[in-house]
Amino acid sequence: MTAELRERLRLIVVTDPDCGPGREVAHVARAALRGGAPALQLRMKDASARETTELARILVAETRAAGALLFVNDRVDVALAVGADGAHVGQDDLPVAAARRIAPPGFLLGVSAETPELARAAEAEGADYVGVGPVYVTGSKADAGDAVGTERVARVAAAVRIPVVGIGGITIGNAAAVLHAGAAGVAVIGAVMRADDPHAATRSLLAPLAPLTARG
Amino acid sequence: MTAELRERLRLIVVTDPDCGPGREVAHVARAALRGGAPALQLRMKDASARETTELARILVAETRAAGALLFVNDRVDVALAVGADGAHVGQDDLPVAAARRIAPPGFLLGVSAETPELARAAEAEGADYVGVGPVYVTGSKADAGDAVGTERVARVAAAVRIPVVGIGGITIGNAAAVLHAGAAGVAVIGAVMRADDPHAATRSLLAPLAPLTARG
Repeated sequence: MTAELRERLRLIVVTDPDCGPGREVAHVARAALRGGAPALQLRMKDASARETTELARILVAETRAAGALLFVNDRVDVALAVGADGAHVGQDDLPVAAARRIAPPGFLLGVSAETPELARAAEAEGADYVGVGPVYVTGSKADAGDAVGTERVARVAAAVRIPVVGIGGITIGNAAAVLHAGAAGVAVIGAVMRADDPHAATRSLLAPLAPLTARG
Repeated sequence: MTAELRERLRLIVVTDPDCGPGREVAHVARAALRGGAPALQLRMKDASARETTELARILVAETRAAGALLFVNDRVDVALAVGADGAHVGQDDLPVAAARRIAPPGFLLGVSAETPELARAAEAEGADYVGVGPVYVTGSKADAGDAVGTERVARVAAAVRIPVVGIGGITIGNAAAVLHAGAAGVAVIGAVMRADDPHAATRSLLAPLAPLTARG
């Protein structure tokens, strides 16, 4: 399972309501899945839980059909209620130990952990993977803070046994460097959600990642 | 159980971060419990899930010790993780049927339902009680809308078998009228949270409610 999970975390497409004029999150997400995205994370920071639930229901059907994973950001209850594969929580969200307590076996929990210390704590509390970032400068998250670079990815990856996913400012040009630093995969927002062609952008992002993750 | 639940819903003290200068929510909540409040609802609209979880953990210990119920507003995951008695969801929150799916037997679900139609839908989806309001004009909820009056409480109470709780602008002076209209109880925010003496305010609110609810 660990090798399989690692493989499916090589690219997480994180949704963003800001996905271009006249485009809907569900349509862009579907294009990403057609492009081969092995995982989606539904992130709706300013939406109500009801709206998040409605979109999560649509996406869980899409990801299941595509054989991809669906994570719901922050709202563990929504993730559980719609039957998503997991949830992603930040340091201000439900603590991972608390989330683990209410989740059934096999439910995946990702945790944002910017330092080796936070990553080790998340692993000890039961996280299945940690996200570290922003690796590069990003415009997608207003509160993301300064870029931590691939050196930080390497330090976090060395600190834990669970997979590490780099996030923040990831592009087709720099994605491979994040894996070289020790990450199992990358998470992207703008590189797919605001791409002119989300399907092609997903394929292009995956191309340089596949050979590396084949190492298992 | 239904009669017992109805009895414990006769006064729900809803927390508010705006609880007076130099006062903390946990302290005011404790005073309300000492004053006999049979139920608390933790409501933290602008807080992170982590902050809500931390305060919920404190309050669940307090309510258990006092033999009172603890509901968590909106965050069903937090309620489940801390072992609260239930959650209260609005029409924009996790749908009650979705919440019911992830909650263990006996977990209580309250739903805001301003009309007989919404109340019947909530009952059909598995709600244990409905909240209706704002009964009177209130300053505690910026988005509460126009007052619906006790006539609406009566109509909602006539439409469902589950208990109805009136909320919005409830004071010591008008609480009994809400029960006369058919409610099992009232929920208050400012009348306790911003009272000079929350302990005395709770006792005063309960006094006119007890004889009525003794009808069972």
